[in-house]
Amino acid sequence: MGDLREILITAVPGLPEIAPGFKLGAAITDRIDVAAEDVLVISQKVVSKAEDRVFNLDSISPGPEAARLGSDLGKDPRLVELILRESRAIVRTDLARGILITETHHGFICANAGIDASNLNDPDTVILLPRDCDHSARLIRAEIEDAVGVSPGVIISDSFGRAWRHGQSEVALGCAGIDVLDDWRGLPDRSGRILTSTSIAVADQIAAASDLARSKTSGTPVIRLRGLGRFVQADNGPGNSSQLRSPAEDLFR
Amino acid sequence: MGDLREILITAVPGLPEIAPGFKLGAAITDRIDVAAEDVLVISQKVVSKAEDRVFNLDSISPGPEAARLGSDLGKDPRLVELILRESRAIVRTDLARGILITETHHGFICANAGIDASNLNDPDTVILLPRDCDHSARLIRAEIEDAVGVSPGVIISDSFGRAWRHGQSEVALGCAGIDVLDDWRGLPDRSGRILTSTSIAVADQIAAASDLARSKTSGTPVIRLRGLGRFVQADNGPGNSSQLRSPAEDLFR
Repeated sequence: MGDLREILITAVPGLPEIAPGFKLGAAITDRIDVAAEDVLVISQKVVSKAEDRVFNLDSISPGPEAARLGSDLGKDPRLVELILRESRAIVRTDLARGILITETHHGFICANAGIDASNLNDPDTVILLPRDCDHSARLIRAEIEDAVGVSPGVIISDSFGRAWRHGQSEVALGCAGIDVLDDWRGLPDRSGRILTSTSIAVADQIAAASDLARSKTSGTPVIRLRGLGRFVQADNGPGNSSQLRSPAEDLFR
Repeated sequence: MGDLREILITAVPGLPEIAPGFKLGAAITDRIDVAAEDVLVISQKVVSKAEDRVFNLDSISPGPEAARLGSDLGKDPRLVELILRESRAIVRTDLARGILITETHHGFICANAGIDASNLNDPDTVILLPRDCDHSARLIRAEIEDAVGVSPGVIISDSFGRAWRHGQSEVALGCAGIDVLDDWRGLPDRSGRILTSTSIAVADQIAAASDLARSKTSGTPVIRLRGLGRFVQADNGPGNSSQLRSPAEDLFR
């Protein structure tokens, strides 16, 4: 029964408002014990704030495509301009419901290029995703190692909508030192049968699990998970980008 | 800090091979303490076995559509016939990769109508999804209440592939006594701003979390989660079907 695990999920308490340049790794280890086999899931929003990815819409001049699309969607054209700048393609629009789903430069498919206008006191201020979420995860991991000498798995996450079902689920955007996929293809199952198509979305399942330990109002952007050491690796690994389907491998864009 | 939670995820040990008519609820309470605020996530496969949803392909005569599609996809036409019988629509086919994605009669969009050919010693034996997964969840919940007098949340789950990303994630198929979606639309966030589009996929996040406590070879189809009592309800509730998008609300089928 060596495969049996018990998992404990705990919110990291007491993080302050995050300003540009804030060192998340050190702040986490100041507030909670971190072991080498832990996984830390960090909400994208605080990473973006620390990386100064906060924009005021007053600084944005919408081009003609943003003006037209904003008008069609009933969205602020300055916000649409930012969404288009952060995207490599428009994937779907739903004019009646004001929905704009794009593929970001990272390769994420999500509403509004992941740009977030909520949780801020100024309605003209928006938060963009980190430029390179795997890089952000590696930096925070290195900060933790500098602070306490251990290198846990680090996941940057955000809540995205999904196809076919209502609601949003937390997914991984950036990963360091954690198995993104647990690939069982070619290995035998319990009855000895060779599995042909099983690759488990470990990082996304960890992100989803982390979201259960907070609420929208709890102000706990960092969650620690214990009991997942088998997925934590010394190397930073290929990062979250390794789980993104290329257009040729994707039937739903 | 009343919103802070610590969550403990534990696999239920020692369940036997499941035969038709097996009473899962009583078997679970025989093996682990179950409290009213717990959530139990039960792998679809053992529910299907208990409900005798196991079929031998020798009993299936493929019709002309299944024969043609089986030939095009390189799949056993008897299996394709079963997939078509379990589906209300074909959503995507990828002939080169032998992929057949359908919408099941439940409204799930997944490969092969969720029919599972692995984990069995006989390659001609396959397992179908339960006929009505919400009903299955309610029955197991009632069995647990009969056995120990408490009514935890119950989720029947399976691992499905997803759009845009590689890998499979565990999702809810049937729910009883658990919030399927946690709807924050119209409520204020931490800074007082009204949220317009936030509905959290609680049941699916719980299903994903449960999968972290087992491996493909651990033989632990039932997982208990503690610390999620705020999502457990006395009523069985609307069930998992309440989170499925209708075609008119879905941009990805």
